[in-house]
Amino acid sequence: MRLASFAFLACLAATPALADPLPSWNAGDTKSAIIEFVEAVTTPGSETYVDPAERIATFDNDGNLWAEQPFYFQLQYALDTVKQMAAEDPSLAEKSPALKAAAEGDLEGVLAGGEKGLLEIIATSHAGMTTDQFKQSVADWLAATKHPKTGQRYDQMIYQPMLELLAYLRENGFKTYIVSGGGIDFIRVFSDDAYGIPPEQVVGSSIKAEYKVIDGEAVTVKLPELFFYDDKEGKPVAINHHIGRRPIIASGNSDGDLQMLEYATMGGGPGLAILLHHTDADREWAYDRDSKIGHLDKALDEAAEEGWVVVDMKQDWRTVFPWELE
Amino acid sequence: MRLASFAFLACLAATPALADPLPSWNAGDTKSAIIEFVEAVTTPGSETYVDPAERIATFDNDGNLWAEQPFYFQLQYALDTVKQMAAEDPSLAEKSPALKAAAEGDLEGVLAGGEKGLLEIIATSHAGMTTDQFKQSVADWLAATKHPKTGQRYDQMIYQPMLELLAYLRENGFKTYIVSGGGIDFIRVFSDDAYGIPPEQVVGSSIKAEYKVIDGEAVTVKLPELFFYDDKEGKPVAINHHIGRRPIIASGNSDGDLQMLEYATMGGGPGLAILLHHTDADREWAYDRDSKIGHLDKALDEAAEEGWVVVDMKQDWRTVFPWELE
Repeated sequence: MRLASFAFLACLAATPALADPLPSWNAGDTKSAIIEFVEAVTTPGSETYVDPAERIATFDNDGNLWAEQPFYFQLQYALDTVKQMAAEDPSLAEKSPALKAAAEGDLEGVLAGGEKGLLEIIATSHAGMTTDQFKQSVADWLAATKHPKTGQRYDQMIYQPMLELLAYLRENGFKTYIVSGGGIDFIRVFSDDAYGIPPEQVVGSSIKAEYKVIDGEAVTVKLPELFFYDDKEGKPVAINHHIGRRPIIASGNSDGDLQMLEYATMGGGPGLAILLHHTDADREWAYDRDSKIGHLDKALDEAAEEGWVVVDMKQDWRTVFPWELE
Repeated sequence: MRLASFAFLACLAATPALADPLPSWNAGDTKSAIIEFVEAVTTPGSETYVDPAERIATFDNDGNLWAEQPFYFQLQYALDTVKQMAAEDPSLAEKSPALKAAAEGDLEGVLAGGEKGLLEIIATSHAGMTTDQFKQSVADWLAATKHPKTGQRYDQMIYQPMLELLAYLRENGFKTYIVSGGGIDFIRVFSDDAYGIPPEQVVGSSIKAEYKVIDGEAVTVKLPELFFYDDKEGKPVAINHHIGRRPIIASGNSDGDLQMLEYATMGGGPGLAILLHHTDADREWAYDRDSKIGHLDKALDEAAEEGWVVVDMKQDWRTVFPWELE
């Protein structure tokens, strides 16, 4: 009798499927499409069953796992860092118009400098130190800085529904990856705590590095030169390079994710593309075709043509940020 | 009583620690040093305890997990492929002395062409196809080709003691990686079957790739241009790029692994460097300072200075290849 009771309790404990795995997603076509796909690839005997080893899900970061307005958070880190460096060494601001604009916190001036100016700012703020020193600098910045609109730490401005989706996929045997146009070492500082994604499952843009032994310590030092830009066509290339498998779920929110969404769905096997559309000016931001940040135009058209799952943030998400639940 | 018996049996089944985890390693200092290190970093409460998430072990491949004589197996694949391509299109052999030598199977001529000639051969044999096509080509070649000395498939010429070490580390919570100067996509074809190392845990050299949609299929196509050479100083850089953590065990056999062994042991925390010395001309090969393949000179000196674990193949390994156990 005691054994039987125990077995009954064990069965109860083993049926979390009865609970809603995505409580922050409103009921509707979007939520159903995601759950149906996951069930189709994980149900043994299903025609579309996928071996656990091949259950790879790739997520863009900026504007997809965390917010990206008024502009990419990593750019804010870069500007803050250049400003601090220029305060210690004023000659820095005289080196170029872009660095001067950054030192003065003049975002318009920074953006006017185009890609060349941005790369200069990234090189100045991200290079010339060991990888560990860089990560410490990012961690310090995250701890000290608040978002201008919400007053929250940047690494709290993550999307509750996406946290639930990541956890749901992992519970179903998926390996979850970040594949971001943002910096690989920048994201690694918070990805594990914020999303449960360990450093080895982060793919991103990077600058070159060199190996050195300094005072008996073996280190890598970051160099002011681009190594790989992980955006658009670069995303499938980086996925193949880092993971060596084609994702069966890809999730993004901008034209920078278009090729990754194609890569997950145009491979001959089952594939799900999830495109997040920022439609909620009240709880978050609303932007798409006209936005410089998170520009979403071609991918929105292709999503309609290809029947991809488009998440309407305003309609599909019951909660946006975790603090709303507190 | 029946419950007690069951518990007793369960306990028996749960005590594999009583069995020798490394049966193909002879008892001695080498084996003891490895086991003592693993126990030191995995015993809770130990001063040198390392969290499972940080238990990263990186292994060189050529001459370390599988053999590399009379020359790197991937080079044999490249030569065989160029030969086959030249049979279909004889004009290929007229393009350069290196390609002519490769087409004629003239190894001396190939090596005389130096690094430039080798890169030409790699570019010709590894590029111009999709990543999937390349992997299929490697799989076909592995299935059809035998090693000239042993008559075994190349992917059978793997080291039994290393298979046991990989399994032992994984049982102790380690994540095992390949970090090779060889090609990342080449190794991924057999790494899971041969070593239990999945594609996403393979780091290696690579050529560039581009993304394309061909007849509705999204693919990556390999380009005839080097992307990253994962050797010497490149290994710690690639480890940081792919894994984002410092290994606490690194294992290699040549000067190409020197910096990786430093990286694992010169980071301030516990670290173990394992250097395999090929000393067994009877069962395998004996070579070190004078060999062009698997050149081992500086790393042997540094191993002595730093007290790294040097594996003397002849003395420390009871078995070399798995087929010896059959």
